[in-house]
Amino acid sequence: MMDRKRSLWAWGWEDRFPDDDARRALAAQVAFLSSGPAPSLRSAVPEDAIAIGPARLEVPSSIAAFTSADPGLRARRTYGRGYPDLVRGFAGDFTGAPDLVARPRDAAEIEALFEAAERMSAAVIPWGGGTSVVGGVEARRGPRHAGAIALDLGALDRVLEVDAVSRAARVQAGVLGPALEAQLAPHGLTLRHFPQSFEFSSLGGWIATRAGGHFATLYTHIDDLVESVTMLTPRGRWETRRLPASGAGPDPNRLVIGSEGILGVITEAWVRLQVRPRWRAQASVTFARFEDAVEATRAIAQSGLYPSNCRLLDGREALLHRVAFDGSSVLILAFESHDHPLEPWLARALAIAESHGGSCPKGPRYSDEGAKVDGDAAGAWKAAFLDAPYLQSALVSLGVVVDTFETACTWDRFPSVHAEITAAVEEALRRTCDAGVWSCRFTHVYPDGPAPYYTFIGPRRDGALVDAWAEVKRAASEAIARSGATATHHHAVGRVHRLAYDRERPELFAAALRAVKATVDPAGLLNPGVLID
Amino acid sequence: MMDRKRSLWAWGWEDRFPDDDARRALAAQVAFLSSGPAPSLRSAVPEDAIAIGPARLEVPSSIAAFTSADPGLRARRTYGRGYPDLVRGFAGDFTGAPDLVARPRDAAEIEALFEAAERMSAAVIPWGGGTSVVGGVEARRGPRHAGAIALDLGALDRVLEVDAVSRAARVQAGVLGPALEAQLAPHGLTLRHFPQSFEFSSLGGWIATRAGGHFATLYTHIDDLVESVTMLTPRGRWETRRLPASGAGPDPNRLVIGSEGILGVITEAWVRLQVRPRWRAQASVTFARFEDAVEATRAIAQSGLYPSNCRLLDGREALLHRVAFDGSSVLILAFESHDHPLEPWLARALAIAESHGGSCPKGPRYSDEGAKVDGDAAGAWKAAFLDAPYLQSALVSLGVVVDTFETACTWDRFPSVHAEITAAVEEALRRTCDAGVWSCRFTHVYPDGPAPYYTFIGPRRDGALVDAWAEVKRAASEAIARSGATATHHHAVGRVHRLAYDRERPELFAAALRAVKATVDPAGLLNPGVLID
Repeated sequence: MMDRKRSLWAWGWEDRFPDDDARRALAAQVAFLSSGPAPSLRSAVPEDAIAIGPARLEVPSSIAAFTSADPGLRARRTYGRGYPDLVRGFAGDFTGAPDLVARPRDAAEIEALFEAAERMSAAVIPWGGGTSVVGGVEARRGPRHAGAIALDLGALDRVLEVDAVSRAARVQAGVLGPALEAQLAPHGLTLRHFPQSFEFSSLGGWIATRAGGHFATLYTHIDDLVESVTMLTPRGRWETRRLPASGAGPDPNRLVIGSEGILGVITEAWVRLQVRPRWRAQASVTFARFEDAVEATRAIAQSGLYPSNCRLLDGREALLHRVAFDGSSVLILAFESHDHPLEPWLARALAIAESHGGSCPKGPRYSDEGAKVDGDAAGAWKAAFLDAPYLQSALVSLGVVVDTFETACTWDRFPSVHAEITAAVEEALRRTCDAGVWSCRFTHVYPDGPAPYYTFIGPRRDGALVDAWAEVKRAASEAIARSGATATHHHAVGRVHRLAYDRERPELFAAALRAVKATVDPAGLLNPGVLID
Repeated sequence: MMDRKRSLWAWGWEDRFPDDDARRALAAQVAFLSSGPAPSLRSAVPEDAIAIGPARLEVPSSIAAFTSADPGLRARRTYGRGYPDLVRGFAGDFTGAPDLVARPRDAAEIEALFEAAERMSAAVIPWGGGTSVVGGVEARRGPRHAGAIALDLGALDRVLEVDAVSRAARVQAGVLGPALEAQLAPHGLTLRHFPQSFEFSSLGGWIATRAGGHFATLYTHIDDLVESVTMLTPRGRWETRRLPASGAGPDPNRLVIGSEGILGVITEAWVRLQVRPRWRAQASVTFARFEDAVEATRAIAQSGLYPSNCRLLDGREALLHRVAFDGSSVLILAFESHDHPLEPWLARALAIAESHGGSCPKGPRYSDEGAKVDGDAAGAWKAAFLDAPYLQSALVSLGVVVDTFETACTWDRFPSVHAEITAAVEEALRRTCDAGVWSCRFTHVYPDGPAPYYTFIGPRRDGALVDAWAEVKRAASEAIARSGATATHHHAVGRVHRLAYDRERPELFAAALRAVKATVDPAGLLNPGVLID
């Protein structure tokens, strides 16, 4: 694994990028979808043909031990993995590269970096896994900045303490998902936080962006998994006390969680863990009508059963993810526990689903001793789920506009929110692409509402991909803002979701956030343009 | 009910204050406890003998329609129901009465009030139910204030909208618990938030103080029940969007929740409701050793079963609340559901408890159709729970130092936290009272830690009750701060818990909070001395 290489521009491992045969098959699918010719396979500009401009900052001696102006490194710290990032990286456009990349190894080096940045008037962009899809790690500088420094947290990748009694661990924020789980596994514990980006995203990134885990209910959001947090700011350390709960004033963790690097850099956290599950129970329920599936999902979300998975796929989503092929909606239900068998839980959830017109032809499946319950819709779903970001990159290489976005709303509003969003996306795809399709799933469900997640795909022969993407995104964001849903449920705001975010948040809260930033980062070093101006 | 009168100084209804026979019985118990003579029954200074000083503010015409300087009304808006409040009220000391009491009926009147207060340099103290036990509603003014106005939210007491689909309601913040539930009952819904103060505390007060409900796990804290909130500040309206969840920046609700009236006045909120439960399951488990009971409680808290009640009483707590009389610790377990019978849940929780040495002689009890499962330890507990604040008032009339305080800590720290707190309280009681006793229960449990709740009782013949109380509280607060627990789990900070709070919160968070306050309340009108200076 040591030599395994991350792609310069695409999602994930270079060796996982679909090969030409796979891309041709994908092109044929796009042709079918768009009733047009198959798009042709294009190649990314090779790394050695990419010109990275000279750095506008010199490396000050105070941070030289961990800071570099190497062009290759700067290229790799230019973009996240949003759609415009993929397109620009594919085209070899790295004009926005940071001037320096710093990789501090402890708090003292981060403090030195803040001091140096303040002296140089440099913007500082915290960089965890670099998987932001909202422009959250892009090295933009404000008008007052002489340059930008990417603050790479990658050297802070250790689990420092494990408290098996309280089931918690103190973890450095730069650790990526697999390394974190590997360090927890010998203790029989897991953070059980599996966003789609898991393989390449970091604990600090999850906290800074309020990441959502893979599970549908209860303790799945990183917000709920943070016991305490340490954030370093240009004006000192913001370190909260390790507590299971508190009623002492507004929660000081909650101003850090979701702060997207504008207030400070998260260096470590105590996080809540779970014992690895032993029992699993699973079923896939199909519905002829999406509306019935929504009602069933709502009833289960309000039942007090709290399934670990309760993922509703509409007909097209089921098709795209190879879960069902007849237009049925599919509800994937699962429970898991380290403590007890789960028959009563799943049986009751299935009864609810069936009372709303669902059918479960394969019946429930149970396992003991940690065996996975794969092989049916859930297994197909999972494989497709992890492949999806690779597919998106491959579609970029075929000149296809393709992205996902997500939101959340209360149940009473879902029908109108859904209608408004999908009408806006359809219209924008018609306007900007040769053809287009969208699909919808629920990634998380709450007693008071779902988190719908949308995928849109539109081939565009003339290659003006980012313009087309921006139009569809703008249409979707406006529909979200108008219909009373949220700018984002778990993809964060960054720079891409500012339109909907600025309309959603109370104006006084924005003023409050600016006042807090002025207190902890008076020189305005950190992540300019994210969340607030 | 219309003529039923709230006590001027004691907890709750005047007609519920223990009569002389009951107080004599209580005095005998105190004598037994302190191995001394029974304390004598004293009487509160009658209302007509109390002198309320002249108001230092005149009622401005802009707010005259809803503002009064009536001395009787001012007396009733002077104190919360903390121990020093009871003692001062009993003694007829209302020197801290607010100068005016405003009872606005809508947002426009609140805005007019802020304007008038700013012109007069008056402090504004939001007043919900007036049950604060931490000095949070006391009409103190800062050095810059010419006087103080109690802002009584009592006129805002309506449920404005019910969304039965999402199970949520838009509710005015001044509504008290029983009136809220009465308005929700016709819809078959309940907020299911039952703090001990339920009968006399308000929705806005719960939100401002991060109240904990009666239930042990999951959705019981008001923090989790708030879908959106409207707070009026001297600089405008802070109104969040109704959402089941969001990942868009730091949560703007969470800066309002727990703000204890220093940033604005909460006027309404959308809150998450539940269908009234139909099935109930309950058991009481006794343990010879408290340590075993703690381990059993931890295992259940970490099991994923999520009992609605999981209240552990130590031997003395069980005795004081007439639940057990032999020194056993008692764990009261309960589940409830509107959706499904609960045998598998309770059976598994009982198995866990028994594997840790617990015994359940009466076995589990189940009911259907909403019948209560009373008559055993849980029933005895509930009656004593609701009586407790009345008893505290009665004990004040006997010259007894008596109060409760609570905290939360991780499981690994509980043994040392508990030892440190109880040693400090014992020592302080010895120093300040003729005798003393403390007890402990868990009110809430989390996978990573419990919320221990302490009661202390010490008769003191010489009558210097507040001094003695303050010494015990200081000892407890210092032990809490030193041992790494939280200043308060659900009683709020107010002015009483500042010692531990100021040591717990990150100093940068205090600076951030001051910056936010300067943004929304630049004249510093609101609740001076609470949370920050």
